[in-house]
Amino acid sequence: MSFKLLHKDSTTRARAGVLRTAHGEIQTPVFMPVGTQATVKTLTNEDLLAAKAQVILGNAYHLYLRPGADIIKQAGGLHKFMSWELPILTDSGGFQIFSLAVLRKITKEGVDFQSHIDGSRHFLTPEKVVEFQKLLGSDIIMPLDECVKYPSSRDYIEQSLKITHDWASRSKTALAAACAGGEGSPNLMFGIVQGGSYLDLRKRSVEELCGIGFDGFAIGGVAVGEPEEILREVTEYTAALLPENRARYLMGVGMPLDMLKAIAAGVDMFDCVVPTRNGRNGQAFTLRGELQLRNASFKSDFRPIEEGCGCYACRTYSRAYIRHLFNTDEILGLRLVSLHNIVFYVKLIASARQAIVEGRYAAFLKDFMDKREEKA
Amino acid sequence: MSFKLLHKDSTTRARAGVLRTAHGEIQTPVFMPVGTQATVKTLTNEDLLAAKAQVILGNAYHLYLRPGADIIKQAGGLHKFMSWELPILTDSGGFQIFSLAVLRKITKEGVDFQSHIDGSRHFLTPEKVVEFQKLLGSDIIMPLDECVKYPSSRDYIEQSLKITHDWASRSKTALAAACAGGEGSPNLMFGIVQGGSYLDLRKRSVEELCGIGFDGFAIGGVAVGEPEEILREVTEYTAALLPENRARYLMGVGMPLDMLKAIAAGVDMFDCVVPTRNGRNGQAFTLRGELQLRNASFKSDFRPIEEGCGCYACRTYSRAYIRHLFNTDEILGLRLVSLHNIVFYVKLIASARQAIVEGRYAAFLKDFMDKREEKA
Repeated sequence: MSFKLLHKDSTTRARAGVLRTAHGEIQTPVFMPVGTQATVKTLTNEDLLAAKAQVILGNAYHLYLRPGADIIKQAGGLHKFMSWELPILTDSGGFQIFSLAVLRKITKEGVDFQSHIDGSRHFLTPEKVVEFQKLLGSDIIMPLDECVKYPSSRDYIEQSLKITHDWASRSKTALAAACAGGEGSPNLMFGIVQGGSYLDLRKRSVEELCGIGFDGFAIGGVAVGEPEEILREVTEYTAALLPENRARYLMGVGMPLDMLKAIAAGVDMFDCVVPTRNGRNGQAFTLRGELQLRNASFKSDFRPIEEGCGCYACRTYSRAYIRHLFNTDEILGLRLVSLHNIVFYVKLIASARQAIVEGRYAAFLKDFMDKREEKA
Repeated sequence: MSFKLLHKDSTTRARAGVLRTAHGEIQTPVFMPVGTQATVKTLTNEDLLAAKAQVILGNAYHLYLRPGADIIKQAGGLHKFMSWELPILTDSGGFQIFSLAVLRKITKEGVDFQSHIDGSRHFLTPEKVVEFQKLLGSDIIMPLDECVKYPSSRDYIEQSLKITHDWASRSKTALAAACAGGEGSPNLMFGIVQGGSYLDLRKRSVEELCGIGFDGFAIGGVAVGEPEEILREVTEYTAALLPENRARYLMGVGMPLDMLKAIAAGVDMFDCVVPTRNGRNGQAFTLRGELQLRNASFKSDFRPIEEGCGCYACRTYSRAYIRHLFNTDEILGLRLVSLHNIVFYVKLIASARQAIVEGRYAAFLKDFMDKREEKA
């Protein structure tokens, strides 16, 4: 069994565990920085290790288009290509095919689309996507699914679920076939629960996927534009249905408080582009709320982004200096705030884990919310 | 005396020395990375220290406009503002006023111009420029001068020289006045030799400036579009006229071979935007010539930029990976090649110094030229 549950919080559903992968163990709950194109934007591996990142994400859709299978194969896989030695989870690209690609057409067989980069035509099946993720050498493979937008009709989601579940089953078979003859698969595979905002469809999805059997389960089709209450309702409802002895991953979420509330609902794993994307726009995360460092109010604020943070940006530079970098379009600004935000996210979730282990998660969550009420 | 000559090469005019500043000693010859806007583009101070940079440049024109005197003053000077503890040389901004600013008008009194950023009107005098560099806390102050474009008529340059020399004299007086009462100036000031491509005017400029007396001398008005032969002729001619017991700084030069030939002519200090600017365009410097890493020929080249380089980029990533970063517009690519190029430049000039100390500079220069003939 790849996942081991170590601690359960007494007053919430929060849990601490460890997920074993071919490139090492991941202590959960965990935040996974997003390295869509084989790079966590602006940061080196050294930066990520200093931030204590345990696992990063890659994206099969993007890597399939650039650099492409041929170069990844010659490099000896994604870990070698990007010189990252810790675990990598690769998203199948379902979300990207449905958000970036053009002229896409879904059939039972797979998805036909044109690249958002050069318009080239591609046809991907669940089997091809697994094969590509095997080639990447992903530690945690996500099967191809349809990530349905919000809002969608119940009818549409019911039809879509059938395809997603069929693809999940075919993906599992494809991985088993690819690993046949070896001693089991070095790659884990997670099932992705869909069902939109319809709780009974979420339940059906959990049942179908549990029937197929996976190393972990993701809650997909969230953070796609739905109201916050629906995100929380779907997360709490779905997490409670998932088997206790498997890791639970809430895809694409999110803001710090969303993650901490999801942890209270029993979620173990998170990824989100917010710390780097917002960082490149000058937004820095702190325990007392977000700061927009482009603002003139920081022009002679010589404090670090966050007192006591300990990241290189906070140890070395002031808000005033970083504001100057943004004001003069200097790339170092993007880098420093991205670094700080990744450190903040990783540390926040690691602190949440510590609180769970020490049986004080509810107090931790309350304290986090109280601090944000105070002025930054 | 701030400059101490330690070694003279036996077969060339190359020399090794040490320049003492308020923030420490600089071993010469030295390459000084350019941090125009209080940042060496894409790099942190940690990166610069790892590259063994001994001194960096700031630019008074840019820093005067942004963040401006008020913020620098509140920060306690440029060193504190950018958290850089080693020496800083600040250019007066003469070059920028004449290349970037609009509607400039030079009078004997000073220069009237509009900011290239917001069109705001400014009038700078040599005294104001010294005062601002004092406020920056620059270790090496450059006086305001007119950097004349190439080609310019002899008449124009003669007229311009009178102003430049008058401004040099006023700058020295202004620095002395600013330091009156203290135990001498903690800031060194260099004179800037102008005179275009007219050797007799260069000679006149050297004589005038030596008459005023400075802690070192810069050869200015080069690398402004003149042919390579003229750059070399002016450099060799002027360097030979300068006093032996003062540091010599060739402004804005240049390409690796240009620097090494200038060292053979007796130059001690260099600055150039090429390693970072070209690095951001994907051009990497190596002992076997330049590589354009955007090229498709590198897409499955899994060697480091330069074998044995030892910089973080070369220790960690391949040409193929960096090519992928440029191909996907990822900021990390700009950062990695900038880092490699700064390491290359600093190390190249440090190696030149070592060769001088060991009395083998001519062989070092020949070896450098031979290697570049071979294929990268």
